[in-house]
Amino acid sequence: MLKGACIIGQSGGPSAVINASAYGAIKTALESEAITRVLGARHGIKGVLDDDLIDMGKEVPAEPAHMKYPPSSALGSCRYKLKDPDEDETDYLRILEIFKKYDVHYFFYNGGNDSMDTCNKISKFMLKHNYECRCMGIPKTIDNDLFGTDHCPGFGSAAKYIATSCMEISKDANVYDKGQVTVIEIMGRHAGWLAGSAALASAFGAGPDLVYLPEVDFDLEVFLARVEALYKEKGKALIAVSEGIHDKDGVFISEYGSKLAEEKDAFGHAQLGGLAAYLASQVKRRTGAKVRGIELSLLQRCAAHLASATDVEEARLAGETAVKAALAGESGKMVAFERAEENGKYVCRTKLLPLDAVANFEKKVPLEWIAEDGCGVKQPFLDYVLPLIQGEPPRPVEQSLPRYARLKKVLAK
Amino acid sequence: MLKGACIIGQSGGPSAVINASAYGAIKTALESEAITRVLGARHGIKGVLDDDLIDMGKEVPAEPAHMKYPPSSALGSCRYKLKDPDEDETDYLRILEIFKKYDVHYFFYNGGNDSMDTCNKISKFMLKHNYECRCMGIPKTIDNDLFGTDHCPGFGSAAKYIATSCMEISKDANVYDKGQVTVIEIMGRHAGWLAGSAALASAFGAGPDLVYLPEVDFDLEVFLARVEALYKEKGKALIAVSEGIHDKDGVFISEYGSKLAEEKDAFGHAQLGGLAAYLASQVKRRTGAKVRGIELSLLQRCAAHLASATDVEEARLAGETAVKAALAGESGKMVAFERAEENGKYVCRTKLLPLDAVANFEKKVPLEWIAEDGCGVKQPFLDYVLPLIQGEPPRPVEQSLPRYARLKKVLAK
Repeated sequence: MLKGACIIGQSGGPSAVINASAYGAIKTALESEAITRVLGARHGIKGVLDDDLIDMGKEVPAEPAHMKYPPSSALGSCRYKLKDPDEDETDYLRILEIFKKYDVHYFFYNGGNDSMDTCNKISKFMLKHNYECRCMGIPKTIDNDLFGTDHCPGFGSAAKYIATSCMEISKDANVYDKGQVTVIEIMGRHAGWLAGSAALASAFGAGPDLVYLPEVDFDLEVFLARVEALYKEKGKALIAVSEGIHDKDGVFISEYGSKLAEEKDAFGHAQLGGLAAYLASQVKRRTGAKVRGIELSLLQRCAAHLASATDVEEARLAGETAVKAALAGESGKMVAFERAEENGKYVCRTKLLPLDAVANFEKKVPLEWIAEDGCGVKQPFLDYVLPLIQGEPPRPVEQSLPRYARLKKVLAK
Repeated sequence: MLKGACIIGQSGGPSAVINASAYGAIKTALESEAITRVLGARHGIKGVLDDDLIDMGKEVPAEPAHMKYPPSSALGSCRYKLKDPDEDETDYLRILEIFKKYDVHYFFYNGGNDSMDTCNKISKFMLKHNYECRCMGIPKTIDNDLFGTDHCPGFGSAAKYIATSCMEISKDANVYDKGQVTVIEIMGRHAGWLAGSAALASAFGAGPDLVYLPEVDFDLEVFLARVEALYKEKGKALIAVSEGIHDKDGVFISEYGSKLAEEKDAFGHAQLGGLAAYLASQVKRRTGAKVRGIELSLLQRCAAHLASATDVEEARLAGETAVKAALAGESGKMVAFERAEENGKYVCRTKLLPLDAVANFEKKVPLEWIAEDGCGVKQPFLDYVLPLIQGEPPRPVEQSLPRYARLKKVLAK
């Protein structure tokens, strides 16, 4: 039995269920014999580097349990990118110093692609320096683009928010006798899992006429002709687009109209936005229709009030599984999901994948799940997403507003 | 007993609960002895003018009941403005013709300021032409700006959506170690009831630092200085603004940056939008901060999944009350709400107001409920809003997505 403290960190963009994973990991760790102390890193790996660690054992037990439902990262997140250790070991040596200071032998990192890369680098560095620390990745990304797992915690809730919001917007946009063209912009830089989920709304009778995923090249002229035809036929149109749609040369459509300086975040991703407004203005110019651009913006990743109970439970399970696997001797792995059927019903099983195999790969929507005309998804896509959005989790409220966990956040010494 | 058919119409912008009012009116009308036939006007008064009326008696009874929870207008809405009858009687004569054709002696119109004006004009025209038709207004507006009523159906649900979304956005925007300035744009052209509701989020621990209502003149320079100070102090800021904020000369701030042609709708209101993005860019220029502008857009008025049970029930009650009052002989009135307390608890009572007294007046937030520095609300505002957002209504779902009423919409002959 490897005795020692553990550190749990949350990284990358928020989701509705990342705290459910943290809760699953923290609870399992607090209950284990081998883990002597449970530390929460404030703002992910930055909290380790800055010696900014919360002693989770000092929280009122009921409060970490309250972490199961609120959105975003209760411990704080970061987008800090560790350098390649072959180039600069500074950060890694500091992490090792902190691990030694708190006798940390378990490290759990909860995030998406970049976070799995961080976890992998730390795992390898510790191995190389003969410091025994079992490092496990807990998947999280609303983008659903992690390689090797059937789906990712966070995606189901975001998909449910998107589908429900599209149904409500559809009801709203269709209310007048005079038609309107509405363009809804949905997150997802390179993978169309979220944008495609808008098609669930259509499958349930109130959704977009056209859905554009970034897996297929986007042609503005073809798009405008299609919307014009639709508008002439029906007097209205509802369109969902991924923020990441791009032309055949790879230029983001959002950059067509952008006069703002293009900014890149720490990972070199261009900052996207304003696409819905741009496309709406183009449609207006072409058709003269009343138009409206709607960006679902942050709410699609933090609207815990519309979370999927399935997603919440699977997120919790991922956290629990990571800790149990580490206790059983695993390291350098990420928890992943496998989809199965039992008595004709969807079930989700966990498995472990080497971090090497998942870090920095992106899983896109299979082209055979996308409609031939490039503006919709096929039934297998809907069949894939539908089980992931099922169920309404309990929603702790106070005076009908969300009741969030109240952590004391006692700094570890 | 006045025997005859009734027409029920929905008008103006959608809300999360306008269908609950329609349901309350339709159910009460279908159950009455005096009302021989219940007709739903498609797209409000346009449906009357176009002889486009649905026979609600031909619906499967379970389906009108399903109208109680879905958002937007199940019968369709319009923004058609009737001319002054002294100038042009054409529309009114047509309405009279349709009333006679279907033997209509009850008319219920559900909407905001402009709709109450429409209802009032029809009521007076019928009186003048000695055609007995009891005309009743059913209030509806998320803007909460109808005169003479404590509050309006639709407001509570929108306020709840705004407060909850602001809490979630606050959790999201605070997640990184590096700060961000986030500007949230909220509906409400001339009255700050909706924007002020964002302050509920702050009162519950996760909301905007600054809240701007259109009742107070907005000074861009003072705003930027305040945000800059806040950003320097805390490294971040969350700001909620009404779409209708304007400078001391009455110029909308949204027009400062707008290069789009200003469009006016049929009622002469300027179309607003893009304010959050504009203010965010101004803050970026001033502070260099990472910024994000978020427009809550249509969802704040159609997010029935986050409706207030209190609002839904009061909306239903307003519809029922209108029909019962008409059956009892009333006409030319609007149903209004009075707030009272019973055993220390909020209760809502109905009363009737002459349409003359409500049409075309706007009720704004009292200045004494707005903070002296003009960027927040005081406790009485919060005390006013809080009872209106209470309770979670049942939310009919199919496969965890909203289940809307399936009306056959059989045209009346």
